[in-house]
Amino acid sequence: MSQLQTINRLQTVNRRIVLAARPQGALTPRDFRLEEGPVPSPEDGQVLVRTLYLSIDPYMRGRMSDALSYAPPLEIGETMVGGTVGRVVASRDPRFREGDIVLGSSGWQDYALADGDGLLQIGEMEHPSHALGVLGMPGFTAWHGLLKIGEPQPGETVVVAAASGAVGSVVGQIAKLKGARVVGIAGGPDKCRYVVEELGFDACIDRHHPQFATELTAACPDGIDVYFENVGGDVLEAVLPLLNLGARMPVCGFIAHYNESAAPQGPNRLPRFLSILLAKRVRVQGFIILDHYEDELASFMKDMRAWVAEGTVKLREDIVEGLENAPEALIRLLEGRNFGKLVVRVAE
Amino acid sequence: MSQLQTINRLQTVNRRIVLAARPQGALTPRDFRLEEGPVPSPEDGQVLVRTLYLSIDPYMRGRMSDALSYAPPLEIGETMVGGTVGRVVASRDPRFREGDIVLGSSGWQDYALADGDGLLQIGEMEHPSHALGVLGMPGFTAWHGLLKIGEPQPGETVVVAAASGAVGSVVGQIAKLKGARVVGIAGGPDKCRYVVEELGFDACIDRHHPQFATELTAACPDGIDVYFENVGGDVLEAVLPLLNLGARMPVCGFIAHYNESAAPQGPNRLPRFLSILLAKRVRVQGFIILDHYEDELASFMKDMRAWVAEGTVKLREDIVEGLENAPEALIRLLEGRNFGKLVVRVAE
Repeated sequence: MSQLQTINRLQTVNRRIVLAARPQGALTPRDFRLEEGPVPSPEDGQVLVRTLYLSIDPYMRGRMSDALSYAPPLEIGETMVGGTVGRVVASRDPRFREGDIVLGSSGWQDYALADGDGLLQIGEMEHPSHALGVLGMPGFTAWHGLLKIGEPQPGETVVVAAASGAVGSVVGQIAKLKGARVVGIAGGPDKCRYVVEELGFDACIDRHHPQFATELTAACPDGIDVYFENVGGDVLEAVLPLLNLGARMPVCGFIAHYNESAAPQGPNRLPRFLSILLAKRVRVQGFIILDHYEDELASFMKDMRAWVAEGTVKLREDIVEGLENAPEALIRLLEGRNFGKLVVRVAE
Repeated sequence: MSQLQTINRLQTVNRRIVLAARPQGALTPRDFRLEEGPVPSPEDGQVLVRTLYLSIDPYMRGRMSDALSYAPPLEIGETMVGGTVGRVVASRDPRFREGDIVLGSSGWQDYALADGDGLLQIGEMEHPSHALGVLGMPGFTAWHGLLKIGEPQPGETVVVAAASGAVGSVVGQIAKLKGARVVGIAGGPDKCRYVVEELGFDACIDRHHPQFATELTAACPDGIDVYFENVGGDVLEAVLPLLNLGARMPVCGFIAHYNESAAPQGPNRLPRFLSILLAKRVRVQGFIILDHYEDELASFMKDMRAWVAEGTVKLREDIVEGLENAPEALIRLLEGRNFGKLVVRVAE
């Protein structure tokens, strides 16, 4: 009996979650649809991968919309995209064997075919899901944005929002390593306590605090030298007047605006943003981490593996059980109701 | 008879224009007041300078307001600030002699005392007023912003607004020298014709054109790689969707907003700005040219003197006669009704 027949006996149905409709404003479960189909068979050069873990990340909201983005939007009916850790169940690429654990982009489905070039062996890892977090795209985003754009100097003040999240938590911990004073912003007292007590930030401000801007000002007595921008909205407005001369602002996203389908009501805050940028000679740099894999991934992995092994960089996962719960997980992420790196466990 | 007595016999009254009130919205003549006082006498180490030319620049609007800026605001009753070319009429600093032509910051007045350290000998120049324009602060702003931040590459598209003005005209001409395709934006057909026919830009779009954004799009078939931001407002909105991957945006001002005393009505354009910045990995850098005199002035002067002498960089002055007309000149500048570098001739 061929290898493929064995698999198909074990599991013949591939569940996948597709984009059912372009979301209008906040995501709802109706924007997604669960479909079933046969498990595909690999052709020459292809590998069939069983999804074990699916990463849930804010950028996914952008791909669901047809607004300008760095990647073309998903079509209605297409399988939702996403980074995954999986197990090879059949391979017609000599570089991969049944049982190999690989990093890939299977998206929101149980099984996917991959070209071998799109897979990365991750070898023996105690927690393979870490390849989707601190040792993967979010950790790399934090590392590149902070070190290559933010360039924090010892004694400078670094502010990072979504501080308990997959990217923010790593930004703050690297900034501490580099000798900066680090102030986090997070949603609610539990996250703030975690950020200070577990991750070692110098302070963390609850963004729901009624005097949020005043609290942030008090926590940054020397102003702000680096603001790692990943939320936008009111957090950005509170940060702007605190920026120091020559401040740097890496921009990797702004989750506060992902659910907006048109320019929000005024006032128009762009002129003030530009005024402050000018008065304080601020450098703002948008970046997409996909651009930097070729040049910088090895350097990132070397740093981060060491930091995680030493315990200098800690992490927390928020694990959701079952592919069918992925839509709810993304909705929760965009509302800030996750606590740590969101991952869906699709199979053992 | 001492030198000073000679001066005082010739001219004993110093006219100066002071800030009469904090402007509310658009400037009016009532925001200024002409005052008279005695011509001051230099003490040891001081130099008395007769103003010949006063530069009129957009930044002056910022100094009249108490909103956040890179320099403290003028107090009510203080003499308006400004760069000047003057003639030394009395000197108690051995480095300066009667008759020397100097660059300084006398502000809006007939005479001013200066510390010798605040004056620069400009030597023999056929047109000393050029030290306030192409060979001075506006030219330096263009040179630094374009070359050190914009970094145009041959074949790239550079867009500059206020293209017939003191800064924009130089930005575009340097960009041409560097092999870029250059598209100007200016107010009205006369300025646009001048920018293309005299300055050699590849195209120039009239910002009053009813289909301005469409015209700009047509003039930039390969998108925009460098946008030299000095106006803001609708021009920026039209530029944003045309920015290419990795575009650079030096920001030296935004004249469209200088007369605003509060955040303008919505919609809020900041989220879209940030989205584009992220999707296109744009680098935005605010700068104030005062920061760069020490390190870069000599290098700028070397380049620009050669370019002006060769005729590669051309210039146009808009000369207003009489100190008393300086307020109207600034009002005109902020409304875009100047044509070329605005200078007030205060004395022969």
